[in-house]
Amino acid sequence: MLAEAAYGKSSVRLVQVSRHGDRHDLKDFTVAIRFEGEYDQSYTDGDNSGVLPTDTMKNTVYALAARHPVEEPEAFGRLLAEHFLERNPRLRRVRIDLTEHQWGRIAVKAREHGQAFVRHGTESRTATVQGKGDQFTIGAGVSDLVILKSSHSAFTGFLRDEYTTLPDVADRILATALTATWRYRTVDLDFNLTWRAVRDALLEAFAEHDSRSVQHTLHDMGRAVLDNVEAVTAVRLVMPNKHHLPVDLSRLGLENRNEIFVPTEEPYGLIEATIVR
Amino acid sequence: MLAEAAYGKSSVRLVQVSRHGDRHDLKDFTVAIRFEGEYDQSYTDGDNSGVLPTDTMKNTVYALAARHPVEEPEAFGRLLAEHFLERNPRLRRVRIDLTEHQWGRIAVKAREHGQAFVRHGTESRTATVQGKGDQFTIGAGVSDLVILKSSHSAFTGFLRDEYTTLPDVADRILATALTATWRYRTVDLDFNLTWRAVRDALLEAFAEHDSRSVQHTLHDMGRAVLDNVEAVTAVRLVMPNKHHLPVDLSRLGLENRNEIFVPTEEPYGLIEATIVR
Amino acid sequence: MLAEAAYGKSSVRLVQVSRHGDRHDLKDFTVAIRFEGEYDQSYTDGDNSGVLPTDTMKNTVYALAARHPVEEPEAFGRLLAEHFLERNPRLRRVRIDLTEHQWGRIAVKAREHGQAFVRHGTESRTATVQGKGDQFTIGAGVSDLVILKSSHSAFTGFLRDEYTTLPDVADRILATALTATWRYRTVDLDFNLTWRAVRDALLEAFAEHDSRSVQHTLHDMGRAVLDNVEAVTAVRLVMPNKHHLPVDLSRLGLENRNEIFVPTEEPYGLIEATIVR
Amino acid sequence: MLAEAAYGKSSVRLVQVSRHGDRHDLKDFTVAIRFEGEYDQSYTDGDNSGVLPTDTMKNTVYALAARHPVEEPEAFGRLLAEHFLERNPRLRRVRIDLTEHQWGRIAVKAREHGQAFVRHGTESRTATVQGKGDQFTIGAGVSDLVILKSSHSAFTGFLRDEYTTLPDVADRILATALTATWRYRTVDLDFNLTWRAVRDALLEAFAEHDSRSVQHTLHDMGRAVLDNVEAVTAVRLVMPNKHHLPVDLSRLGLENRNEIFVPTEEPYGLIEATIVR
Repeated sequence: MLAEAAYGKSSVRLVQVSRHGDRHDLKDFTVAIRFEGEYDQSYTDGDNSGVLPTDTMKNTVYALAARHPVEEPEAFGRLLAEHFLERNPRLRRVRIDLTEHQWGRIAVKAREHGQAFVRHGTESRTATVQGKGDQFTIGAGVSDLVILKSSHSAFTGFLRDEYTTLPDVADRILATALTATWRYRTVDLDFNLTWRAVRDALLEAFAEHDSRSVQHTLHDMGRAVLDNVEAVTAVRLVMPNKHHLPVDLSRLGLENRNEIFVPTEEPYGLIEATIVR
Repeated sequence: MLAEAAYGKSSVRLVQVSRHGDRHDLKDFTVAIRFEGEYDQSYTDGDNSGVLPTDTMKNTVYALAARHPVEEPEAFGRLLAEHFLERNPRLRRVRIDLTEHQWGRIAVKAREHGQAFVRHGTESRTATVQGKGDQFTIGAGVSDLVILKSSHSAFTGFLRDEYTTLPDVADRILATALTATWRYRTVDLDFNLTWRAVRDALLEAFAEHDSRSVQHTLHDMGRAVLDNVEAVTAVRLVMPNKHHLPVDLSRLGLENRNEIFVPTEEPYGLIEATIVR
Repeated sequence: MLAEAAYGKSSVRLVQVSRHGDRHDLKDFTVAIRFEGEYDQSYTDGDNSGVLPTDTMKNTVYALAARHPVEEPEAFGRLLAEHFLERNPRLRRVRIDLTEHQWGRIAVKAREHGQAFVRHGTESRTATVQGKGDQFTIGAGVSDLVILKSSHSAFTGFLRDEYTTLPDVADRILATALTATWRYRTVDLDFNLTWRAVRDALLEAFAEHDSRSVQHTLHDMGRAVLDNVEAVTAVRLVMPNKHHLPVDLSRLGLENRNEIFVPTEEPYGLIEATIVR
Repeated sequence: MLAEAAYGKSSVRLVQVSRHGDRHDLKDFTVAIRFEGEYDQSYTDGDNSGVLPTDTMKNTVYALAARHPVEEPEAFGRLLAEHFLERNPRLRRVRIDLTEHQWGRIAVKAREHGQAFVRHGTESRTATVQGKGDQFTIGAGVSDLVILKSSHSAFTGFLRDEYTTLPDVADRILATALTATWRYRTVDLDFNLTWRAVRDALLEAFAEHDSRSVQHTLHDMGRAVLDNVEAVTAVRLVMPNKHHLPVDLSRLGLENRNEIFVPTEEPYGLIEATIVR
């Protein structure tokens, strides 16, 4: 028996250039589409008669972008979701995930060039649109935002057992590659503006927080989003603890005045939580 | 309000050498541990008094491996889960994920060497143990098992709309990087033997199936597992469609007799389903 | 016979926090060290008596950073090179490669925070110091600087043969992930200032160039460096052509007004050259 | 002035299915092509009239594979090299690099299936053909062959200085991801057979060697190739030391009987040498 099934297209890459005279705008997305519905017979009997090919899903991304240039990933995701739901009677739920790769403008003699761009960081802006019938849920997020604070971070007073060797640390480096996703109250919003407001709230809370643990800071960041951005109803944060270990210089006849660290990739702590109103 | 929260340690690397005279056994794991429970105050107030450090979780992996050499990842995962549940009254649910990296022996003059090993493929064996109170659920899996069939795969008769350009294909390459996970009926099993039986069932079904779509083959593979391995109650398969496109040689004045293909990384179809009894 | 041999330590990770009251400076490097010299007996006879362990090379990075905080990667590389050459009579040539991972400051209410940082892009600053006896050669570079221009790029009038299907394109996207390395005339320079001048010259030339091919733009960028920065004697550029293919929308009943593109990862053109005075 | 320049196409992916009734053969390659020659005007003046597009290089790979199915990567590389040299008078040197991704057959009821395949390891077979006029040099190799020995590996008696903290170790794990490349005396060989002979020699030497250091084992492996395979004139080995650190269990009240290790990714030792006759 088929308990749960979905199919779709992932990693659809879209670059869009909008030309306004000498000033071009560049948008760069990776899109994923996921269908759930009455498709059981394609699994059990190999009956494809109701199956929209994933290749067509890909084509549709390009066709809709050509017809309605993308301004906000959230709105473009909704357009795709509506398009698929209207034309596919077997489709019960559709999910569109968009990742925006961010570019800035190259500066020439301190002036932004209109047609030359430089790729920004590893950080991406994300958006998720879920549709069911004529109901839509819209969320957004940020992924792989790598941040670090070099003060106001401690981890002390924790539980100890026979295998605990970690010492209390009053002043450590706190670093993470933040993935945050949040849900919006409505589907009509200035999504670009709101996204920036959430990102600002996350970064400011991280910078200003007097951290007693990753959990503690994660919660404060989530609360800051809910406090500052009315449109958000829930926010989920996933924060790997990118440990920075102070180097033991005493074996080299030197003192480490909390200045020399080794960042480590593995193992890593992983802290996650959802904060709701 | 904190709606959902978890913390733990990921990417704990463990290599274990068991020495039986001239013949050594090598085991190589990546372990992740995830705690859910009464830890809200660590988030809201920065109160760490009930928080077992993730560093201690890591130490515990090494300590338990030293005391009870790992034979089966499922059994070792259960040992870890029990250990944590017994000692941490605030812990409500624990999850242990293990990934086994597989090694074979180097052959010297057609004889397996006792102490020299070569790493096998990208394929990993996985195991998941979930514990709550004194209840345990055990599952296993395989990840990144890259397989391809060069015949008996078609995709025809699908739904067409204005953006459909894909032609019917009667004889195509079907390739995927399989991730499968399954759940066991009991917690007492010969896990190594059963894992091999499931893997065999998956591979045989893939090889023998007369495929009308990825969905169709996925379902057949899932059914083969349930038919052949009584201990499995449900199996989930995730199969990215690693498209192999026939090269259009006609523009080069040549014919492609279904022999020359370009494998592509993106975009890719993604098919997933759970099959239960 | 041993024709060529080297040994060393790679991927030594160093994070340095310099504390000036409320304002901290953060430096983040990956360092590689490579020794060539009279070490043949360690290969042929397993005689380690003259071999400085690579573990000691790693320790030395931390020890020297503790004693002389890193301001410029070039100067720190030279310090390391001198240290090793002075103490290791068997060492004939040493090479130090440094990669600096760049961080900016988090802005809080439009003011830069003194102790909170956000990781910049994928772009890295690199430096290479080579030492032999008391002679040092110093170079620098940039790696994985992803840039794109949406106009003033053509590729026409090329050689055609029986397998050529590429059409002339008068207006295409030109994108690359630039790796550039250059050599300095002297070992005494304001390395930070000079590095920024070279990077500016590269970006400005890329943005302003009327490109007839990647080769053509590569050459112009190299020439701009030599024209603008007297301290540089040679510059090498490696430019993968990150193809952006216009989507054929005609099959979807739509027109592509040079606005909708698919960026592709493979295959890619690869253009490289060294420009010298 | 242009001191050194090359252009070409990288990451050309080719999958070839040869159909012999029910038994298919599968070949999977990544190909790179690199041209050096009289192309300066394309750099300096943007004159493309002598430039074969890299897109044509890609097409040529598919066209030649369609006309001459690939049996040996070395022979196919030579075919490509000859093709380009004959038709491009400006081409002075051409280099073809081929990487073969290895597949085995899926076994069904202990019998190899004719049309179903499973991808082997991360290990690749490589080949390099260099052509200049009518002179060709052919080499081959293996990359990312991950091997480990759990005995007969020591590292003792090395040089110590003020920053040395590494203890002598008489019995350690030795692990590496071997990249080896070798050059053949002639261009007429049974390349498949010879490649397997070299690989066997490398693995046997690694397994049997009584290692005093990575350098020591590397040299023994290189010598084994020259001793066992007459057709090879020189072999280069690059061996990252994938350190496996014994876990300090004493702090957990336990003893580590040289059984529990943490494999680390960074930093790593890097040993390389070329062995010639």
